[in-house]
Amino acid sequence: MLEPAEKDWRKKWYHIIFESDTPAGRRFDVLLLIAILSSLLVIMLESVPKLRAQYQEQFVMLEWFFTVLFSIEYLVRLAIVKRPITYVWSFYGIIDLVSTLPSYLAMVLGGAQYFIVIRSLRLLRVFRVLKMVRFIGEANVLGTALRASRHKIAVFLIAVICINFIMGTVMYLVEGPENGFKSIPVSIYWCIVTLTTVGYGDISPATPLGQFIASVIMIMGYGVIAVPTGIVTSEITRSQSKEESSNSKSCSNCNAEGLPMQAKYCQHCGAEL
Amino acid sequence: MLEPAEKDWRKKWYHIIFESDTPAGRRFDVLLLIAILSSLLVIMLESVPKLRAQYQEQFVMLEWFFTVLFSIEYLVRLAIVKRPITYVWSFYGIIDLVSTLPSYLAMVLGGAQYFIVIRSLRLLRVFRVLKMVRFIGEANVLGTALRASRHKIAVFLIAVICINFIMGTVMYLVEGPENGFKSIPVSIYWCIVTLTTVGYGDISPATPLGQFIASVIMIMGYGVIAVPTGIVTSEITRSQSKEESSNSKSCSNCNAEGLPMQAKYCQHCGAEL
Amino acid sequence: MLEPAEKDWRKKWYHIIFESDTPAGRRFDVLLLIAILSSLLVIMLESVPKLRAQYQEQFVMLEWFFTVLFSIEYLVRLAIVKRPITYVWSFYGIIDLVSTLPSYLAMVLGGAQYFIVIRSLRLLRVFRVLKMVRFIGEANVLGTALRASRHKIAVFLIAVICINFIMGTVMYLVEGPENGFKSIPVSIYWCIVTLTTVGYGDISPATPLGQFIASVIMIMGYGVIAVPTGIVTSEITRSQSKEESSNSKSCSNCNAEGLPMQAKYCQHCGAEL
Amino acid sequence: MLEPAEKDWRKKWYHIIFESDTPAGRRFDVLLLIAILSSLLVIMLESVPKLRAQYQEQFVMLEWFFTVLFSIEYLVRLAIVKRPITYVWSFYGIIDLVSTLPSYLAMVLGGAQYFIVIRSLRLLRVFRVLKMVRFIGEANVLGTALRASRHKIAVFLIAVICINFIMGTVMYLVEGPENGFKSIPVSIYWCIVTLTTVGYGDISPATPLGQFIASVIMIMGYGVIAVPTGIVTSEITRSQSKEESSNSKSCSNCNAEGLPMQAKYCQHCGAEL
Repeated sequence: MLEPAEKDWRKKWYHIIFESDTPAGRRFDVLLLIAILSSLLVIMLESVPKLRAQYQEQFVMLEWFFTVLFSIEYLVRLAIVKRPITYVWSFYGIIDLVSTLPSYLAMVLGGAQYFIVIRSLRLLRVFRVLKMVRFIGEANVLGTALRASRHKIAVFLIAVICINFIMGTVMYLVEGPENGFKSIPVSIYWCIVTLTTVGYGDISPATPLGQFIASVIMIMGYGVIAVPTGIVTSEITRSQSKEESSNSKSCSNCNAEGLPMQAKYCQHCGAEL
Repeated sequence: MLEPAEKDWRKKWYHIIFESDTPAGRRFDVLLLIAILSSLLVIMLESVPKLRAQYQEQFVMLEWFFTVLFSIEYLVRLAIVKRPITYVWSFYGIIDLVSTLPSYLAMVLGGAQYFIVIRSLRLLRVFRVLKMVRFIGEANVLGTALRASRHKIAVFLIAVICINFIMGTVMYLVEGPENGFKSIPVSIYWCIVTLTTVGYGDISPATPLGQFIASVIMIMGYGVIAVPTGIVTSEITRSQSKEESSNSKSCSNCNAEGLPMQAKYCQHCGAEL
Repeated sequence: MLEPAEKDWRKKWYHIIFESDTPAGRRFDVLLLIAILSSLLVIMLESVPKLRAQYQEQFVMLEWFFTVLFSIEYLVRLAIVKRPITYVWSFYGIIDLVSTLPSYLAMVLGGAQYFIVIRSLRLLRVFRVLKMVRFIGEANVLGTALRASRHKIAVFLIAVICINFIMGTVMYLVEGPENGFKSIPVSIYWCIVTLTTVGYGDISPATPLGQFIASVIMIMGYGVIAVPTGIVTSEITRSQSKEESSNSKSCSNCNAEGLPMQAKYCQHCGAEL
Repeated sequence: MLEPAEKDWRKKWYHIIFESDTPAGRRFDVLLLIAILSSLLVIMLESVPKLRAQYQEQFVMLEWFFTVLFSIEYLVRLAIVKRPITYVWSFYGIIDLVSTLPSYLAMVLGGAQYFIVIRSLRLLRVFRVLKMVRFIGEANVLGTALRASRHKIAVFLIAVICINFIMGTVMYLVEGPENGFKSIPVSIYWCIVTLTTVGYGDISPATPLGQFIASVIMIMGYGVIAVPTGIVTSEITRSQSKEESSNSKSCSNCNAEGLPMQAKYCQHCGAEL
């Protein structure tokens, strides 16, 4: 059992590190975000050949500095939080761990340090600094919309995949390896590139027939790209209108619905609400 | 006339092979899906030059294994189902046949085996494994939406085709064969590539005037791509709201159905609900 | 003044040529469409170098055949219609003329024959063959939607053009002629290619700063491409809901609106309609 | 204190230069627009190498002509307007200044003259010539829609940026420098190019695994591009419906405003309307 002083000390730091509604807490989170961003910047710049050639050791040093920093932060969080286990298995807890481990792994096996980019997930902390609640609200609208439309999206995706399989094979037969359609997987890749209107141009039909089929695929791509947009849009519209209608009265006299909250009388029958 | 034992045997297998609401039936369908997917994988890998060079005979063997497997499955289905004819001409029946025949044809004429990719249509069976009903419902929403908007889409497509014809010819005259616009068909192909915002870059305008016209086409492409999206979106929104309003009251007096939930009186007989 | 026989003769042919609700009229229009399509096909194929080299004179012959055919058709239309002037200045009248003249001009000045592709506008006649009325209805929905949103589109376009001007110049300064951004017009062209997500790749940023700016432009392009879609979609939704609400009753007793046409009693107050 | 004559003179010119509801004012604005456009044209053409080589001094002359012209215009505006300070710091005031200064700076330091393209912002004056009010209204609808959806967009953008970071790094590890993915920043750039469906093709995956990941990113890009569209669309729909509902009743009893058209009783005081 801890003596009060210690407990206060803990509580104080808990507010600073885990919450952001106090000025101190906000300041801490902002500093943390800056640290995260600069650590990401270091990793990115390190991957640029000429910069690596020049500033090799500086990068390594900075890399270690941030790793140690985040490790300390993680341990402090563990020390301060009431139930460490729940934190460890929480969304942010896992990200915090996963984004610090790799640089230790990097000593053992090479390349692993790149996975530090998972650290970019820590940017999600930005939501805590900004007015958390509101943003979560917005995110929920998007989330529910996407969740509600997941079945339609699935139906749609399977259809798209079948189209890609068939069209990809057809193009492989029409164009053949000599025009860059080296194999069925490659021409399925090309078909996806076309249907999503990305169109790299690394592979493109050369025969008249191939170009005709490609044109058909593109025109199809039109309608195809319209479908997910339509699904998501209608879902967002609905989840929004629900959110709005959820703050509206209904009249007990004439059962009229969707009356504004500030209404004192029903606009249809005049009855007092 | 069959003795009961035989009939039971049939019924049991019918449930396993044709239905997927029993655990056994579901297990069968899952195995079938895995078989289909792996047969598709074989065909795809077979088309990769270096793999074909190395594992030629393995591929052929696997290919034959799956063909025989699916042939047996098809015959079993024929044997078990009550009315074989209706099955043969059913949607799945045709697909099942068409996806097994090619490899037999492949012996006679080359290349035919590629059409086995029609087998990818069998992936649609995935809907049987997943909660069929719900997905079919979702698919219906999409289906009705697309069906309802087919006239608008047609109007739209014909307009797009006319634009492509005219713009394609204009670009052919402006850029000419020396800049890759070899012929009118080719520059119509380019025009579709541009209007659908695919933009391979295999052909791209080189003259200032050509680039100006291209810019106009692209800006147009904006509005153009907005139209089908708009059509489909509004249709989906509608077909969804219809589906929702379809959970409605019925009148106890005149048995009228499909009355809106907030209705207080039957709109047909005026009786209070 | 014409004797009846002649008048009947005229009326009969008027029905055949100008209308398509009679079997004869439909047959005529279908034949006409086939003629138009095949004449377009001839022009397209003629532009393919190797085909022109081989079938030069056949193409010219066919070209003349169709020109004469359409000229005759035009004259017949003039002869049969009651008010030739009104036909000449009508939408179809102008197209019919403009799509036959060029080949005569082609004798004088070369290249002119390509404008015969204006003939593709004649494809609009397809709407006469298909169930005219319904399609016109659909077209109207689209038309009104686009007309209603023309101001927003204008606001949007001017904004986009300004963005393109400024970003184009910035990229010209950043990348410079050595990376393909030869001049401001060219890099404005590039900016449009990017913002519309066409992305040919004939010009693409090479410097890190250029690539960063390009990324910003693309992310912007996201929001940007969302705007016209949003505008058109909401307009279509509205013009459709209007169309629907236009066939709905309202209750004279409780002023409830949007009651289905077949309703005999108000669902809110039970009053007879 | 000014004698009336002078004041009238001022007022008259104020109406001409600052307003566009009088014929004279509109004429002035149109001329101004033409001047702006032609000055932009000069800058653009000047940047074309061969034109600059040929017409160097003419361009410089024209450049100076427009600079002087706009400087005079700016001074006149200052002289005529009642509160010069408020004009100087107004939106148009700043643009007018910023779009004339650069050519003076250009004498000191090179390249600066390109920033004259900020002058393109002056094109916004076009809204004054067109029916200002209506367009501002339309712009407001778009503005409010975008403002209302800014939080969702933010959520969305941060998510997209995280995806790009992670996917970019993954592709860097998979494809490596030998396939054009020179560094993490470059492959993040590639990832943005792909996710936004721009697809230049200056960098494109070469390894099978890379192509597979790319395909996944593109399919994701589908859903991703659907989200902002959905957000903006639903916002536009709402802000429009609001605008429409804003043509509403007011209560003669309690002077409450913004009552829906179909309301029969005031929702605040219950009085019959």
